[in-house]
Amino acid sequence: MTTTSAQPAPSVSGDDAGAFLHDFRSMSTFGATPGGGVDRQAGTFADGQTRTWFRGLVEGHGFDVRYDVVGNQFALLELAPGAPYIAVGSHLDSQPLGGRFDGAYGVLAGAHAAIRLKPRLAAEGTEPVFNIAVINWFNEEGCRFKPSMMGSSVFTGKLPAEQVLATTDPHGTTVREALEAIGTIGDFSLDVAAYLEIHIEQGRSLEDAGLTIGLVESTWGANKYEFIVHGEQAHTGATVIADRHDALLGASSLVVAAREIADEFSTEEHSVITSCGEFTVYPNSPVVVASRVELLVDVRSTDPDVLAAADAELHRRVAEIERKASVRIERGAEHVWAAKAYDEAGMRLAAKSAEALELPYGTVRTLAGHDSTNMKDIVPTIMLFVPSVEGISHNEKELTNDDDMLAGVDLLTEVLGRVVMGDFVSPNASGD
Amino acid sequence: MTTTSAQPAPSVSGDDAGAFLHDFRSMSTFGATPGGGVDRQAGTFADGQTRTWFRGLVEGHGFDVRYDVVGNQFALLELAPGAPYIAVGSHLDSQPLGGRFDGAYGVLAGAHAAIRLKPRLAAEGTEPVFNIAVINWFNEEGCRFKPSMMGSSVFTGKLPAEQVLATTDPHGTTVREALEAIGTIGDFSLDVAAYLEIHIEQGRSLEDAGLTIGLVESTWGANKYEFIVHGEQAHTGATVIADRHDALLGASSLVVAAREIADEFSTEEHSVITSCGEFTVYPNSPVVVASRVELLVDVRSTDPDVLAAADAELHRRVAEIERKASVRIERGAEHVWAAKAYDEAGMRLAAKSAEALELPYGTVRTLAGHDSTNMKDIVPTIMLFVPSVEGISHNEKELTNDDDMLAGVDLLTEVLGRVVMGDFVSPNASGD
Repeated sequence: MTTTSAQPAPSVSGDDAGAFLHDFRSMSTFGATPGGGVDRQAGTFADGQTRTWFRGLVEGHGFDVRYDVVGNQFALLELAPGAPYIAVGSHLDSQPLGGRFDGAYGVLAGAHAAIRLKPRLAAEGTEPVFNIAVINWFNEEGCRFKPSMMGSSVFTGKLPAEQVLATTDPHGTTVREALEAIGTIGDFSLDVAAYLEIHIEQGRSLEDAGLTIGLVESTWGANKYEFIVHGEQAHTGATVIADRHDALLGASSLVVAAREIADEFSTEEHSVITSCGEFTVYPNSPVVVASRVELLVDVRSTDPDVLAAADAELHRRVAEIERKASVRIERGAEHVWAAKAYDEAGMRLAAKSAEALELPYGTVRTLAGHDSTNMKDIVPTIMLFVPSVEGISHNEKELTNDDDMLAGVDLLTEVLGRVVMGDFVSPNASGD
Repeated sequence: MTTTSAQPAPSVSGDDAGAFLHDFRSMSTFGATPGGGVDRQAGTFADGQTRTWFRGLVEGHGFDVRYDVVGNQFALLELAPGAPYIAVGSHLDSQPLGGRFDGAYGVLAGAHAAIRLKPRLAAEGTEPVFNIAVINWFNEEGCRFKPSMMGSSVFTGKLPAEQVLATTDPHGTTVREALEAIGTIGDFSLDVAAYLEIHIEQGRSLEDAGLTIGLVESTWGANKYEFIVHGEQAHTGATVIADRHDALLGASSLVVAAREIADEFSTEEHSVITSCGEFTVYPNSPVVVASRVELLVDVRSTDPDVLAAADAELHRRVAEIERKASVRIERGAEHVWAAKAYDEAGMRLAAKSAEALELPYGTVRTLAGHDSTNMKDIVPTIMLFVPSVEGISHNEKELTNDDDMLAGVDLLTEVLGRVVMGDFVSPNASGD
């Protein structure tokens, strides 16, 4: 469900906190669902509405808006003509029946940090050495078009643009067609010297520890597999058990095994998390034994050795299930992300900034992938978290309290202010 | 895939066996799939083609064709003006990527049995006391529109016609719209005095025993449940295991448990068969813990006590899975068919007929539901099986050899010949 009711104009109030909350509420009406969330899958009408609204907001504050070849949206604020750019961003797209904070909070926080900085720097008479690009990455969620983190993967050279543009959704619409339909595609390109992102935690560690800010020290290692379980189509009524090659039984056994592995391999120091988020049965008729199931299985851990052990067990179990369920299990595409640290200097700068604002902070690891997971591989990157109530995410009930959102914008403003002054990276070392 | 290439005209050859095989091959071209099967889901264009072809075939042999309010197709052959009718039938619709024998063989066998009988009775100078209706039941398969055995369920008063006509397929098309689109709906009605059906076994017991004919003595008992597993949508990456309410884990555990129950409760004398043929995950996105899974679980057994014990275990396991996977499992619609015997006099008549033709026969039970499962509850019914190679069914590779098909038509002709002479039911007892 999307709403097209008239929106309040983007705020230009002098009250920073009020302006942010006002804009956040306006933004949350696009693709709003009856359950209090949003449905703004990448390249849909609702995603297009949100992008257009965001363009209007930042243009009203003097930004120039551009699109690159895969629909990444760049809102450019010039502070130092001719200087290189610091990027700050996240994504405005959502899961189906997703929350209104995931991604969208970070894009708006980035815009508001830049909006606040411009007059502040001018009033202080300081001379920034960088310009600012607020980036709304295309298709971070990866539900309509796969894979996730699509826009930032092209930007960082991990996926070819042509391959992405030809990728189809389940109805056969390509990314190119979807982007052209909502009018947010161009040929802009930009080199950036550093990247900042703020995001909701989507877990409960900050809340449990009573902290307002998380400084992300590393990603978890993640092995993601696409499995195809091959069985043999048969009549559910007439085919005796001994004659069955039931792909659904094989795939279900794999889902159960994945959870058992998470339970068995997690230790006090290092968690293992396994998931299966997509599971598609063919032909999926009431009286037919399934001939094929496609499913995605992820194994994640904070420790590379624990991850390797859990992964080996997963593959041992796959072979066991093939025998027991009398099916063949093919391993299709795989994506392996090693656990990787964020920039240490960036962590120190963020910690100093939080101390200056007297915000309680701690270090965290991110289980989920973010656009910063890509960006940190090409430029120095700082990733910040604010709490998620009860850790609920990818859910209409996702919530981050106003005070936490505002503390995050304050911190991002402080960090971005230091970075554009050259406290994190040097303007001479950047660009190409 | 459907084919519309020009068909040989229905055969009017005097060679009974050749004529049947010729017509069977012609019929199998409608909705033919590259893998050697057919896709003729109920009310589709391919189903309509097959029905129109069948109409042409039997009209060429002097039958009148009529449709009732839910699209059951009646081919009427008058042998004794004013006398009641004996029905013989099955169904021309198929599963997606189904075999070309399932259902279609029985309809064509019924038509050919009637076609052979007419001149034979005339030549013998005998006076039949019944007319013959060959029935092609609408939507036996139940894949596009649920439930299965739809047409015969309305005919036998088990389902209201209005409810059936308003039933929609996954695209929102109603049964009424589908039947009107293919032009096979009417307002005909008929009382019948007895029902005969021949079908492929869809199991391997005849083949294993070296028999050509199975006399079906009873249906298995079957409890069919629709379960809805309720979880909580969450982020697969960020949500720790302890916070998950994973509907996919709950549903997968239920699939695994169902198979374990079949293994545990089957005895030498009585098999238990469990199946899950449909399994739909919401929202089915790669990075989202499933909020809901809908699945169908069947438990079948030849023995009512064994069935009851297996069913009780299933429900105990459902409660256990709710606790272990931290989900709620709702039981939706259920269909319970008690194991039920076919008419004993009919079994004796069929056995005598097989002996007269020197066909090796045995008694079998049907695991699968058939239109005769409905019909036997309102009129004396005879159900016959011919072998399925390797028991393969609901599969493009489904096969019944020509010799077995022809033996079945011979037997059906023999049985039908006796029944229209009053050897099974009396013409005075029938009708209303």
